[in-house]
Amino acid sequence: MPPTITAFESSPDRGRGQARDMRVRWALEEIGLPYDVRLVSFAAMKQPAHLALHPFGQIPTYQDGDLALFESGAIVLHLAERHDGLLPREANARARAIAWMFAALNTMEPPIVELGMAMLFERDKSWYADRLPILQDRARIRLGELTRRLGKADWLDGAFSAGDLMTVTVLRRLNTSGLLKEYPDLAAYVARGEARPAFKRAFDAQLAVFRAADS
Amino acid sequence: MPPTITAFESSPDRGRGQARDMRVRWALEEIGLPYDVRLVSFAAMKQPAHLALHPFGQIPTYQDGDLALFESGAIVLHLAERHDGLLPREANARARAIAWMFAALNTMEPPIVELGMAMLFERDKSWYADRLPILQDRARIRLGELTRRLGKADWLDGAFSAGDLMTVTVLRRLNTSGLLKEYPDLAAYVARGEARPAFKRAFDAQLAVFRAADS
Repeated sequence: MPPTITAFESSPDRGRGQARDMRVRWALEEIGLPYDVRLVSFAAMKQPAHLALHPFGQIPTYQDGDLALFESGAIVLHLAERHDGLLPREANARARAIAWMFAALNTMEPPIVELGMAMLFERDKSWYADRLPILQDRARIRLGELTRRLGKADWLDGAFSAGDLMTVTVLRRLNTSGLLKEYPDLAAYVARGEARPAFKRAFDAQLAVFRAADS
Repeated sequence: MPPTITAFESSPDRGRGQARDMRVRWALEEIGLPYDVRLVSFAAMKQPAHLALHPFGQIPTYQDGDLALFESGAIVLHLAERHDGLLPREANARARAIAWMFAALNTMEPPIVELGMAMLFERDKSWYADRLPILQDRARIRLGELTRRLGKADWLDGAFSAGDLMTVTVLRRLNTSGLLKEYPDLAAYVARGEARPAFKRAFDAQLAVFRAADS
């Protein structure tokens, strides 16, 4: 039986690939592993059955036989360690690719999500106009450091890896902010990720879910 | 030669174990691996020599022979995968412990750091009084979910693991917020972590650095 992941029954991003199941779908497509998807509603995510799988009541989860995992980073790493295509074989390069996964999730993503959340939930607050540039500048610091390291390379450290997969999905969350336009090399990097056939298959699959729910 | 980590020459937390080298020191102590520490100033962290090691100009870094790593999560995972003491041997339990590392860094830590940053840097802002309860409630959601999962267990999933190590260090960042007092089972969990001999050795070592710099 193929593994089963969970995804939003009706994604708040309207199928633009921002929900975190996108990372897992993309990884599964890169390694060529078929998978099943179980859709969950926002209400069901907070019920005991789903909380047993995911203590924080979120998606995605991953079930394969006796194994149940949560956290997109952990699921992608689990897949990457067990299948070819997402991590270099050489031990040091492999450790560095994993370091980029952590950097995407723990260094790049927090200021990017914080900016996105403010743009979604604080627009009507009296402080929004004053705080927005502070949040933008916090994200810019990380974007500047990332583009300096990337330079003109295609990927962060040699061949495409799970580190790039995570970083591209994190940078895609800047979509409504407009910030990525200030960093053309990073915008091109994201476009390279989006051009991968595995990305496209994953994107189309999650978009199809949204379209079916929306119709 | 033992591996070398970097740490703040003068830690902004005055040696209370909040800097991220603490996680790596603790992991090294748990597995019983001797290590060297190279101290870096805030100015040196942003210079090319350090940026070559750490693209985001932070600590800790980890160097062992030809390998250079950054990101505390990646370093702890690297150590945990190669030495006994921080991950279960059984494959599924091992994957779940790694999931808790990601949960600590990507689900628990962002709202906790956001609260801490506001308490440090936004106290003089007009919006501080209005935003503080919003940030506290965001952290409380995650703390509530975590304590529900932990229950009365000693650790998150069986024996102490790198997942607990990361989670305890993340929860310790709530120290000035007072929030941990609202969750006595989580406070006891953190205290169990702090009571481990390896934690104490790591804590004392980083405190000694601060005291030497401060004297």
